[in-house]
Formats: sequence, structure tokens, C-alpha cells
Amino acid sequence: MHIVADENIPLIEQFFGDFGDITRVAGRTMTQEDVAKADILLVRSVTQVNRELLEGSSVKFVGTATIGTDHIDLECLKEAGIGFASAPGCNAQAVVDYVLSALSVVVDSRGIDFRDLSVGIVGVGNVGLLLRQRLEQMGLTVLACDPFKEEDDVGELTTLDKVLGCDVVSLHTPMEKGGDHPTWHLIGDAQLQQMMTDACLINACRGAVVDNDALLKHLHDNPDFVAVLDVWEGEPELNRELLDFCALATPHIAGYSLDGKMRGTELVYQGACEFFGLPERLKLGQFLPEPGIRRVDFSAEVPVHQALRTAIRASYEIRVDDGVMRSVIRHSQNLRESFDRMRKDYPLRRDTINLKVGVPARAHDLQDALEAAGFDVRSR
Amino acid sequence: MHIVADENIPLIEQFFGDFGDITRVAGRTMTQEDVAKADILLVRSVTQVNRELLEGSSVKFVGTATIGTDHIDLECLKEAGIGFASAPGCNAQAVVDYVLSALSVVVDSRGIDFRDLSVGIVGVGNVGLLLRQRLEQMGLTVLACDPFKEEDDVGELTTLDKVLGCDVVSLHTPMEKGGDHPTWHLIGDAQLQQMMTDACLINACRGAVVDNDALLKHLHDNPDFVAVLDVWEGEPELNRELLDFCALATPHIAGYSLDGKMRGTELVYQGACEFFGLPERLKLGQFLPEPGIRRVDFSAEVPVHQALRTAIRASYEIRVDDGVMRSVIRHSQNLRESFDRMRKDYPLRRDTINLKVGVPARAHDLQDALEAAGFDVRSR
Ligand SMILES: NC(=O)c1ccc[n+]([C@@H]2O[C@H](COP(=O)([O-])OP(=O)(O)OC[C@H]3O[C@@H](n4cnc5c(N)ncnc54)[C@H](O)[C@@H]3O)[C@@H](O)[C@H]2O)c1
Ligand SMILES: NC(=O)c1ccc[n+]([C@@H]2O[C@H](COP(=O)([O-])OP(=O)(O)OC[C@H]3O[C@@H](n4cnc5c(N)ncnc54)[C@H](O)[C@@H]3O)[C@@H](O)[C@H]2O)c1
Repeated sequence: MHIVADENIPLIEQFFGDFGDITRVAGRTMTQEDVAKADILLVRSVTQVNRELLEGSSVKFVGTATIGTDHIDLECLKEAGIGFASAPGCNAQAVVDYVLSALSVVVDSRGIDFRDLSVGIVGVGNVGLLLRQRLEQMGLTVLACDPFKEEDDVGELTTLDKVLGCDVVSLHTPMEKGGDHPTWHLIGDAQLQQMMTDACLINACRGAVVDNDALLKHLHDNPDFVAVLDVWEGEPELNRELLDFCALATPHIAGYSLDGKMRGTELVYQGACEFFGLPERLKLGQFLPEPGIRRVDFSAEVPVHQALRTAIRASYEIRVDDGVMRSVIRHSQNLRESFDRMRKDYPLRRDTINLKVGVPARAHDLQDALEAAGFDVRSR
Repeated sequence: MHIVADENIPLIEQFFGDFGDITRVAGRTMTQEDVAKADILLVRSVTQVNRELLEGSSVKFVGTATIGTDHIDLECLKEAGIGFASAPGCNAQAVVDYVLSALSVVVDSRGIDFRDLSVGIVGVGNVGLLLRQRLEQMGLTVLACDPFKEEDDVGELTTLDKVLGCDVVSLHTPMEKGGDHPTWHLIGDAQLQQMMTDACLINACRGAVVDNDALLKHLHDNPDFVAVLDVWEGEPELNRELLDFCALATPHIAGYSLDGKMRGTELVYQGACEFFGLPERLKLGQFLPEPGIRRVDFSAEVPVHQALRTAIRASYEIRVDDGVMRSVIRHSQNLRESFDRMRKDYPLRRDTINLKVGVPARAHDLQDALEAAGFDVRSR
């Protein structure tokens, strides 16, 4: 078989080498000619896959190493009997790590324990559900709402109103302007008013899910309100004043982990194996490089809370990204360009699960808490 | 021999058990009667050791497990031929760890590297000199001033004016109102004006070395100026507004480590051995408990800067203490009482040197940087 793949998708040679010969091309400028002889086409979100691109080609399977599929004309693939796979949830772990790091900062700034927090989750999809599981296992109180999900699948659900009463509200919906449950400006002035004056709002889904003007006004009026924003209405433009008022600010990188990116390729590989009826012989674990921080060892002397925050922030320290963002934006002459460059140059991090955490054999509380938070716990 | 010791000095039984029998008494209320039959008297700063207390006693040696000696009438001891030892520098390591943690926050918030910083050190005594050595080994630019020291002993010295030109100025002098070089309000309006508008001032020596009113005004006028205060003019009272304007604020705990406290006892033990002509058979290392965070392992993949900040903050995270301080003070009805209680209830931390850091055998840069920062580096 012949495989044509975007040059920026990692591990294609490793995962698809056995399928046939591979040609790498630039995703943004992919042409009919590039894909004409391909059996398998592998893209990222920069390539529009539609009738025009596929016209006259031999493509039998399209894979996109992204969670979104807006750039793919699924209807057209279906009509042509072309197989398809995307990578839903490939970066869910990274976003959850982001939220955990943010929460660790919130609890520290209040001198409290993780378990003292209630967290409201809006949208219990790939990210929201994983976050819910983590937080519940860590002993936090979690409320969640999602009009499209069943309690059998995602656990107890309640109303947005109830969710807004939590200490922290974390958003994990898509951005939808239409339909029965639009999410555009889901959090506006009225919803902010419903929240506690010292509540924390985390948005790492899509910028316009929060009315950014209303949020800025709310932050003006409520000095104790805490905003953590990874996504911005109108990004790569953003309101510098809003940035100044945010407790933590990052340039849409919550999901940017090396693991997530590589898992994207793995998921597409699995889809291809299934479509072509081939055995799945390869696993991502074989190809992941060693993480920079390999292991943290605790003794029985460590308070559970300290172990948690130390491991969480050893794995991912949101304040480092926040510092870089603020200093880049402060000195920026061109916000769009700076925002995109920060994302492009982002030093891909590793997911929490890569951090081995050693604990004494009998320290069950410690072990349970660290496992709940997603670490690779080794008892000695 | 008979030893009388303040009940709150740790490890007395371990270090002084072989000297004779030990009686523990309350330091604040120690009487002539308590010390009458003592050969060795061991105190903290809460006990005034003077003619009155020692009158008619058999005391031959006085030890204070503190760096200060204001509570001891040294003249009187000398006249009576009584031996003496204090514990100079016993908590220098802890204060240096505090400053390193603060610096790690400053570099993160600016998105820069440790080595991009110049640090000015005022006072190159036990703390200042250890800090200088650490920072220089880590590759930072250091300027220092101290009118009482010789360059042969403490390295190159310059003027306070020059020191004030650094990115960060860290104060490590005693508080002296009189003499040729008084330190009371050493940093006032004029000195703050000399500093860069986005400079950082760290005070972990004595509150009144900085004119706190002038600092508050300066912070009002210079939103980019960064103040890190561990000590406060007039503490345990403090100005809540100043606290709000500080980037990092802690309740006079920079030197509070378990190691420092126990090293205080060790230093007094060494003084007693010397005075009585006995061999020093015991070492602090034998008695120190295991630290809560035992070890962090890095791979060759980790950027040096990330390894440094991860290890520094795994060892001591100043923002945790900052968070506790702010929330306690926010809810406090009685500032004096709250301030003292935070110090009394402080969970003694462990010095950096206790953290074992594993690095790959060939990662020399990593090894050097972590050793410079004071960690117990193990190459594998
Ligand atoms: N910041 C980042 O780097 C980053 C990384 C990954 C994902 N994301 C974004 O995060 C969001 C969630 O990602 P995901 O992978 O979990 O997507 P998903 O599709 O798996 O989950 C989205 C969930 O939101 C629910 N939802 C839709 N409308 C809702 C409404 N009105 N109220 C409550 N819930 C509603 C859906 O039913 C679904 O369960 C997406 O917008 C995604 O683009 C951002
Ligand atoms: N915050 C804490 O928890 C904590 C802990 C330990 C020490 N301290 C304080 O930190 C300070 C330093 O402690 P140390 O153990 O290094 O003391 P030290 O006596 O060893 O060193 C103080 C140094 O300051 C110098 N100095 C005096 N006047 C000066 C001036 N005008 N300009 C510049 N330098 C001057 C002295 O010559 C000396 O070298 C002391 O005030 C001590 O009480 C605070």
C-alpha cells in the first residue's frame, strides 16, 4: 500500500511502516496530485479533506490525528466508501493534567486541601469524564452537567445552575452556536453572577464558550474571583486587560503533550488496522521517549497533600506557562503572531501517567491519593 | 555532670546523654533554682542568661541553640570563666533555600532562566555568603556589599549603590540602629528609587532593615516592582495593605527547618565537647529523620532549568507558605496572635541537601547545576 501523510504527524514511520511505503507532504498545501496514488491518507487539521482533494485518487482510508473533524467532509467519505478514523480524547489526559495543576495553585493560594474543593464540570465528554474520575478518586466533591449524556455512561448529572454553585467551575464542551444546547457564551454575565464571588472559573475548551467581555467586567467588580484561561474569545487576538485580570493565563496549550500527539497517531493506526482487518501489533508505549522527570520518591513522612501537589507540579507546572505567556504578551507588538508562535514553539510536555512515584509499601493513603491523581505509583 | 536544658531544644538526650543526667525545664520561666546544680545550661532565646540567673550556681558551660546571643550576658559569662557556645549559621541553609524558591518564582513569572538574573546581596555573613556561593555556582551574576568583611574571606565586594542596580536585591544583615553602618531603614525611599522599576527586593533578615512605609508607597507607584517579605517592620503586627502588594509574603519562617533546629543542638554540642576536652563522637546525620520527599530522578531529556526549578520547589515551595499566610491574615481578627501562631505551628521543613537527585552519569551540565543549587546529586 501507499501512505501519504502530513509531514508533522509523529511516529508515522513507526506505526505505518509495515503497511507499505510512506510519502510525507506539507499539510497546508496538500494537492490532488499529492494524494492521487495514496491508499491511506493521514492528515492534521490544516488539511481540508473533501471531494476536490480526493477526486480521482485511490484513497481507501483517511485518518486525522486530531480530536476535531471539522476539516473532513465525512459525508463525502461515506459516499465513496472510504474508511475513516480520528483521535477522539487523545489529549484528554493532558487537559486533565492542566486542570489539576491549576487546582493545585488554587488550593495553595487558599491554604486548603484538594478535598476541601467542590468542582463543577460542564461537559462530560472525553476530557470532562476523565477529569471527573480523577477528582472523585482524589476525594473532591464533583457536580457535572451535560445535556447529551446519560448517567449510566458518565455518572450522576445535574443542572448547570447547580454546577455553577461549586468552588471551581471547569468547562469542557465544544463550541456550538446552534442546536438545542448552544455553548456560545454559555457563561455570560448571568452565570457569573450565579457563581460565588470567590469562585474559580477554568476555561480550557473553546474561548467563546465564555463571554470574555462579561468576564472582564466581572473580574473588575469581584476582586476575589479567580479566572484560569487557556482559550480566548477571538484568539489568536486577546484582550490584554483580561489577561492581566486572570489568575492564570496560557495560550491554548492545555492539551499539548507529546503523549497526546503520539496517541493521536496510535488511534489512527488502530482505526486503519480495524478497517483493513490487520492485527494491531504496535503499542504507543514502545515509541514514547523517556520523560525528563522519571521518578519522585516519597517517604512515609510526607503529608498526602504535599505529595500530591509536589507530584502534580513536577509533572506539569501551569505557572511556568503562565509566566511565559505574560512576558511574551507584555513585550509583543503583534498579538496574533505572538500567540501562534507560543503554541508553535511549545515544548511538548509529558502526561502525568509517565511520572513514576515511589511510596512506602504500607502508606496506603499516599498510594491511593497518588494513583487517583493519575501517577504511575510504585510501592517499595 | 548535670545538664539543665530548655524543654523545646531537640536532640538533647541524643547529643548530651553521655555527658551526664539531663533535666528539662520550661525556657520562659527558668529560675535560679532550676539551674543551681547544673554544670551545663542549654537555652533558647526565650531565656535571659545573666548574673541573676547564674548566681550561686555550678554552671560551667552555657549553650544557646540560636544564631542570636542578645539574651546572653556574655560579659558576665567571661568574668565567671563560664564556657559558651551559640549556633551561628545553623539555619543559613534554610534561608538560602527560601531565597532560591523565591527566585524560581521570579524567573518563572518572567519566562526567563536563573542565569539571566543578577542578584545583589547585602550582608555577606553566614546566610549571605552561602547564598552567594550557591548562586555563583549556579551561574548567576552576583554583586555583594558588607562593610565589615574582607574580600579574602567572602569574595569580591562592592558598594550598596552598585548592589541596588541588580535585578534582585536580597538582604542579609542584622538590625542595628547605631554604629558606623546602621541597618535600620537601610532600604528607604532613596534606595528604592535607585532600584530598577521592575526589580525584586527580598527581605528575610529583619523587618526594620526596610522602611515598610516607603516600600508600600513604592509598590503603589511601581506596579512592576516585586517585593518578597519574610520579615515585617513591627511584626508580629503587620500592614495588611503591604501584604496585599507583596508578590510573596511569609511569617518570618525563612530559617525554619528541622535540620537548622537540630544543627543548633549539634553546634552547641560541639562547643561543649571542645570546652570540656571531650571527643566529638556524634554527628547530626545519625539523628535526622527521613525527609518526606526522598528523591527525584531526572533523565537526560530534562532541560537544566526545568530540573532546577522542579527540585528547588519539590524541596521547598514558598508559594505554599505564601498562600497560608494570606488566607490566615485575611480571616484574622488578631494579627499579632495569628502571626505568632503561624510561626509556632509551622511544619518544619527539610533542607535542600536532604533531597537526593538522580541524574544520568553523562549529564554533566545537569549534575553541576543541581549540585550548585545544593542537592545531594547521585549519578547513575
Ligand atoms: N485547550 C486545549 O488545548 C484543548 C485540548 C483538548 C480539547 N479541547 C476542547 O475541549 C472541549 C472538550 O473536549 P473533549 O475531547 O472532551 O470533547 P468531547 O466531544 O468528547 O466532549 C464534549 C462534551 O460536551 C458536551 N456538551 C455539549 N454541549 C453542552 C452543553 N451545552 N452543556 C454541557 N455539556 C455539553 C457533549 O455532550 C460532550 O459530552 C472541546 O471543545 C475541545 O475542542 C481543548
Ligand atoms: N527570616 C529568618 O527566619 C532568619 C533566619 C536566619 C537569620 N535571619 C536574619 O538574617 C540576618 C543574617 O543572618 P546571618 O546568620 O547571616 O548573620 P551574620 O551575622 O552571620 O551576617 C550578617 C552580615 O551582615 C553584615 N552587615 C552588618 N551591617 C551591614 C551593612 N550596613 N551593610 C551590609 N552588611 C552589613 C555583617 O558584617 C555580617 O557579615 C540576621 O539579621 C538574622 O537575624 C533571619
